[in-house]
Amino acid sequence: MKIVTISREFGSGGRELGKRLAQQLGFAYCDREIVAAVARKSELSEEYAARAGEQAPGFPLTFRRTLSLPAGQQPGMKVLLAQREVLKELAARGEDCVIVGRGADVVLAEYRPLNLFVYAAPEAKLRRCRERAPEGEQLAGRELSRRIRQVDAGRAQYYRLISGRTWGQKEHYHLCVNTTGLNLKSVAPWAAGFVQSWFREEGSL
Amino acid sequence: MKIVTISREFGSGGRELGKRLAQQLGFAYCDREIVAAVARKSELSEEYAARAGEQAPGFPLTFRRTLSLPAGQQPGMKVLLAQREVLKELAARGEDCVIVGRGADVVLAEYRPLNLFVYAAPEAKLRRCRERAPEGEQLAGRELSRRIRQVDAGRAQYYRLISGRTWGQKEHYHLCVNTTGLNLKSVAPWAAGFVQSWFREEGSL
Repeated sequence: MKIVTISREFGSGGRELGKRLAQQLGFAYCDREIVAAVARKSELSEEYAARAGEQAPGFPLTFRRTLSLPAGQQPGMKVLLAQREVLKELAARGEDCVIVGRGADVVLAEYRPLNLFVYAAPEAKLRRCRERAPEGEQLAGRELSRRIRQVDAGRAQYYRLISGRTWGQKEHYHLCVNTTGLNLKSVAPWAAGFVQSWFREEGSL
Repeated sequence: MKIVTISREFGSGGRELGKRLAQQLGFAYCDREIVAAVARKSELSEEYAARAGEQAPGFPLTFRRTLSLPAGQQPGMKVLLAQREVLKELAARGEDCVIVGRGADVVLAEYRPLNLFVYAAPEAKLRRCRERAPEGEQLAGRELSRRIRQVDAGRAQYYRLISGRTWGQKEHYHLCVNTTGLNLKSVAPWAAGFVQSWFREEGSL
């Protein structure tokens, strides 16, 4: 079984790359179904599961308020534990897949996944977020920059919590792709080629 | 004109990847000819030019001894200045090329090169160096590890000297490739595909 994990900076296009990659490779693409399963398991809303599943519990403030509760009742922690189970169940299915975010590179390390990190220059992320924001939900430039930094800080803290390592350090990934100025559609085929050639080598070790 | 620069950790296979990439793309591969031209220009030996062209002057000790000389006579500095000229002349030829090392990404920034960084896990670099060492020049494991760290520290210092930035930080590169366990031969074609698709986008901007 082949697992590709994609860690990505907010606004870098990592999710789009993941989708296109899965399409090219004929792999399952796992994203919202993880959130839905985590929400069911932890008996919390999907919206909460989506946010808490990539943020260290206690971060940001909305979670911090609940930290005085015992760990088992602390909703952020419930989500993280449920998510770990969901990811393990997903891998146990044995299906080739691309998983975006959620620290799947760490949780599923025993399956020797291929780990990508997707990033971009601040201006490029800002532009991408602006283009993709739903009508009426446009944030002003400054506010949007702050939001991008905040989301990534949460992801970094979550990653440190589950791995003890620094998020985005190239040493932890097999390939790091800077999407600044890149057309993800035209880049997906070569990325798929890399994935295939990498798994061929892994298989022959 | 398209320029691809390859920065690489010692022992990561960056040079081999550069050669294969140039072959795949039909680009010129520039490496020893730069050293030869720098040696001629600075009236120093090729061996010295090769070493000093990727090490900050004053590093390691052999260069440091000469630091009390005026900058114009300081051989390490002479090499760096000659190398800058050689790289600029090379770019002025207008030929598509792959340049390995020598801070070409910084010196030729105005040409908007595509910048790759090639790295690997310490064990992988050690193995590669061991396999490639000429008969009779095998270093013991510990000594070899120290040598790898020393060369990379020199490159990092050289990079900081000419750019003021941190060497190997993914933000400065378009693609970072971890070669641990990779077969460079099978990986070169997809890397070439990335390069081509990147230049297509750049051209259309």
